[in-house]
Amino acid sequence: MGRLLVIGTGLIGGSFALAMRNAGCFAGIDGHDSDHMVAETARRLGLIDSVVTDLRGAVEAAEAVLIAVPTSAIATVVRQIESFVGRRTVTVFDTGSTKASVIEALRRRGAVPPWFVPSHPMAGSERQGPEAADAELFRGRRVFVTPQPETARAAVEQVRRWWAATGADVVETSVQIHDEMVALTSHLPHLIAFAFMNWVARPHGGDAALFAGPGLLDFTRIAGSDASMWRGIIAENHSAVLSQYDGWTEVFATVGTLLRESRFDELETFLAAAQDARARLSDA
Amino acid sequence: MGRLLVIGTGLIGGSFALAMRNAGCFAGIDGHDSDHMVAETARRLGLIDSVVTDLRGAVEAAEAVLIAVPTSAIATVVRQIESFVGRRTVTVFDTGSTKASVIEALRRRGAVPPWFVPSHPMAGSERQGPEAADAELFRGRRVFVTPQPETARAAVEQVRRWWAATGADVVETSVQIHDEMVALTSHLPHLIAFAFMNWVARPHGGDAALFAGPGLLDFTRIAGSDASMWRGIIAENHSAVLSQYDGWTEVFATVGTLLRESRFDELETFLAAAQDARARLSDA
Repeated sequence: MGRLLVIGTGLIGGSFALAMRNAGCFAGIDGHDSDHMVAETARRLGLIDSVVTDLRGAVEAAEAVLIAVPTSAIATVVRQIESFVGRRTVTVFDTGSTKASVIEALRRRGAVPPWFVPSHPMAGSERQGPEAADAELFRGRRVFVTPQPETARAAVEQVRRWWAATGADVVETSVQIHDEMVALTSHLPHLIAFAFMNWVARPHGGDAALFAGPGLLDFTRIAGSDASMWRGIIAENHSAVLSQYDGWTEVFATVGTLLRESRFDELETFLAAAQDARARLSDA
Repeated sequence: MGRLLVIGTGLIGGSFALAMRNAGCFAGIDGHDSDHMVAETARRLGLIDSVVTDLRGAVEAAEAVLIAVPTSAIATVVRQIESFVGRRTVTVFDTGSTKASVIEALRRRGAVPPWFVPSHPMAGSERQGPEAADAELFRGRRVFVTPQPETARAAVEQVRRWWAATGADVVETSVQIHDEMVALTSHLPHLIAFAFMNWVARPHGGDAALFAGPGLLDFTRIAGSDASMWRGIIAENHSAVLSQYDGWTEVFATVGTLLRESRFDELETFLAAAQDARARLSDA
């Protein structure tokens, strides 16, 4: 067993570290964060064993490196690790919510290293930082792995095993399918929920809290997510999000037409199809 | 203590009957349903003591009548009760999700009876029927009461006490505010969630279930609601829903503009306002 280095010791990095500690996958866990206090907090909470100041030394000592930083910074960290790795064997993987932007940023500066396995755990929380870390955060969640043609198969298998050890359900897919589907099932719903909260909370909009039932609270829960993080995700997956936005807006406009023209029979047929689709989603 | 008559022994009527039984508010509970099997099931499950076949006799014997039928049928039931009541004192209240349509339908056929207290418990479930009844369904939920100028104050106070005995938080408001606010906080979110499920489940939309995280499941949970019931609610509250639809569509269009023009700083400001609004909603 070697050492794990976690770069970015917030909610996701900290939760992975904790899950690996519980699963006993590594001899020790080092952590680094661009905000030194975040890494110190992670150490104090027992998520990592030590805070890394010498990144080169830590990479040289590591069997695995998890990059759990904002998506826009991932390619830079991969290139930095590359400069430290030399001919050593190391397995590096990330947690970025979008994959094409990372791969494109890497390709702008050469080939994708064979030891780098792009991955994305579909898990999170409205809470942030190492204080919110949870060893069970990934249990029962999907983790997508999107290997490139140059990715070493052994590295992919290794990364799949580590994610599986967190209790996650690991699925391999392509970068394109991944980014389109998360734009549909995650990024667009976040945009709608954020916008809906602004509509509900508009000035003179009335006392919405008085009229808020459990349905509204569930519907808008994801609007409690971190605005800065979501700006990043949406910017990184811009074209896929825009395409989903346009398609969805067209569907919703047909609802407006049915409503305006009091075509309630057709509206009911539309609602019934949605009710069935939601039942299938629950069953799946 | 007198008897309670529940007209409509499905989820809402059955849950109220059960809560009243637990609270010991009535000497006995009779039930009637246009679908006789539904009333029989409610009796078999112990929600009501007896199934009413002679509605006139049951109304004459009742201290209170709860009308828990689809909103479009409420006014007709109120007038039917009126024809049985004569000069007796009875307190009648309903559970309709919209209030203006009920009051307007009543006023088309004369004054609103002083013993009728319009009310709306903001509670429900994706599950339907007496089998889904739950004595705790209303606990911690809001119940809105919208008395009319002719409503007897003693009847309002009595209905407030019964709802309070279910554990609900009873609030008096006007019909207009009620209908506008539920269009905003409940009816429009349902329309969006239903439409979103149809967008997700469209042909060639990809394997959405594979990419569905807990965020999507919460966001679309209300799309699992009964399509026929929601067609009714939306038709009954048509003008308020349409007005909310139009206002919301305009807000969402501005998101589209920010997205299309890559104005990510403004987008982040917009998301941050929503994040704050959602935090305030949770705190309230």
